[in-house]
Amino acid sequence: MKLASLKEGGRDGTLIVVNRELTRAVRAGTLAPTLQKAMDDWGAVAPRLAELADALRDDKAPGSFELEVSALAAPLPRAYQWADGSAYVVHVELVRKARGVEMPPSFWTDPLMYQGGSDSFIGPNDEIELADEAWGIDFEGEIGVIVDDVPMGISAEAARKHIKLVTILNDVSLRNVIVGELAKGFGFFHGKPATAFAPVAVTPDELGDVWNGARLDLPLISTFNGREFGHPNAATDLTFDFGQLIAHAAKTRNLEAGTIVGSGTVANRDASVGCSCIAERRVRETIESGKPVTPFMKFGDHIRIEMIDKAGQSIFGAIDQKVVKYDPP
Amino acid sequence: MKLASLKEGGRDGTLIVVNRELTRAVRAGTLAPTLQKAMDDWGAVAPRLAELADALRDDKAPGSFELEVSALAAPLPRAYQWADGSAYVVHVELVRKARGVEMPPSFWTDPLMYQGGSDSFIGPNDEIELADEAWGIDFEGEIGVIVDDVPMGISAEAARKHIKLVTILNDVSLRNVIVGELAKGFGFFHGKPATAFAPVAVTPDELGDVWNGARLDLPLISTFNGREFGHPNAATDLTFDFGQLIAHAAKTRNLEAGTIVGSGTVANRDASVGCSCIAERRVRETIESGKPVTPFMKFGDHIRIEMIDKAGQSIFGAIDQKVVKYDPP
Repeated sequence: MKLASLKEGGRDGTLIVVNRELTRAVRAGTLAPTLQKAMDDWGAVAPRLAELADALRDDKAPGSFELEVSALAAPLPRAYQWADGSAYVVHVELVRKARGVEMPPSFWTDPLMYQGGSDSFIGPNDEIELADEAWGIDFEGEIGVIVDDVPMGISAEAARKHIKLVTILNDVSLRNVIVGELAKGFGFFHGKPATAFAPVAVTPDELGDVWNGARLDLPLISTFNGREFGHPNAATDLTFDFGQLIAHAAKTRNLEAGTIVGSGTVANRDASVGCSCIAERRVRETIESGKPVTPFMKFGDHIRIEMIDKAGQSIFGAIDQKVVKYDPP
Repeated sequence: MKLASLKEGGRDGTLIVVNRELTRAVRAGTLAPTLQKAMDDWGAVAPRLAELADALRDDKAPGSFELEVSALAAPLPRAYQWADGSAYVVHVELVRKARGVEMPPSFWTDPLMYQGGSDSFIGPNDEIELADEAWGIDFEGEIGVIVDDVPMGISAEAARKHIKLVTILNDVSLRNVIVGELAKGFGFFHGKPATAFAPVAVTPDELGDVWNGARLDLPLISTFNGREFGHPNAATDLTFDFGQLIAHAAKTRNLEAGTIVGSGTVANRDASVGCSCIAERRVRETIESGKPVTPFMKFGDHIRIEMIDKAGQSIFGAIDQKVVKYDPP
């Protein structure tokens, strides 16, 4: 089934079940008013949501309505945890190469992960509001999973069964802020403003054989100002799958239900497939010609991120956003 | 007023109002079932909670009961954001001095802050469960504030009025894990297991003249295995007050109601007042005698963190925890 949240009913939105074609939806109502409530009691709630999804498919769900993506918040409009990995190590290696520094070999065996801000996500069509173009505004196309309760110290193999939903996201990044911020040694904070999510999150069974239980074998398509920017495959060159990423996140603590774990920017070694963020293209340009050519995002720029299944259906719907100037109070 | 959460009624607990003496309490009930719900609508809910606090004080609150601290979760058992500063720069300077590296001068003007895990806090008397003593288990006594909605780009002065609650906390840290983790460049993750909070969070008016709107002028007392470990004053040597820390956190994004902002380990330049964490004592030992003497925490060790007002009353109640061995599944 496919789940989304309407921007109505409060800070956590209103949970809706969406059909496969992303054309119609129905409120989950008393089954679970919000996606967080569904995650809190997934074992009991999911089968009933699945029944509602079946009824919607068969045009037998009372109160169903036409889906408008602009009415959607992120599937979890706010979450208790957002733990983002950097699982395509080829990407990290490229970035280091452009900077002329060697990557520690341990990066191939020990995942990079940062704690992201999760209190205030933005919806698939929400504007990216930022005060300053000089911050080096960039998009990052990623895969994310939402888990139920994960006990501390779990194995990567056992972690797989905690993946309840899969989605895609735009981990908006401020490249010119990140440089100085990481140098301070405490990780990302200003450099990672509000993250945007796809219209829907889907249960793994929706994905069929492109989902192996821990990774998604399809291209992630990024379109920047109407031109394709990249379509790297999310299974190719994935160094750590979601079982490994969840186990990494849970090494010294429990993960509460509704925790979102991200893959980091989807990236392939093959340059011909393009990139899922501007920073990587700039790195490739630097390696090829000595300097970056593509500028970061300007106010008015558009980014679209989507994943299409083998039958041509958009799986998660499109993240489709414009960058706009924010005026502080 | 003083607010706490009982470990009952679900993942967010049940909001209670506690009297000044921390002896009696009453459920907030329909006013706000949980502290997060109260934060979500603070302007409307707070005056009604204050009325209930008055009734409790006057012994006129039906259903009031004797407070048992062991029945308490953290005031927010889970939160949407935990942004922890390092506002006592004297502490950072000491740590660097022991390592023989210079601290960048910018650290005196640009706050250090990390994004903490907020999905699963532990209560004031909960055991600190960890799998391995070799991780270098440490406590960190800190001040924390809980804010309502803070708009992106706010000034430090305007940020002060968003402080709705004040509390103290134990930011449990794994020192031997942090060294390697920070070297990876993405900040803390494994090195910061579940954070523990005091029994209650209080509105600023409870603090009287020791609260200047952005800092708390009282000693924070840490007692390790029954012996005083330190009592540094939380206003002395505070480089960035809470107005500045909140403004820093909100530089590139909005902060959702219920966000917790922390001060970092309370530390004074004056060595005679002791420390709020073992790491700092070890640093001082290293500077004095060439090597650290005090070991990190072992299974069975106790830590108590508390703040006493000028009349001798514990303001937030005591954090009082034991470290125990955790066996992974």
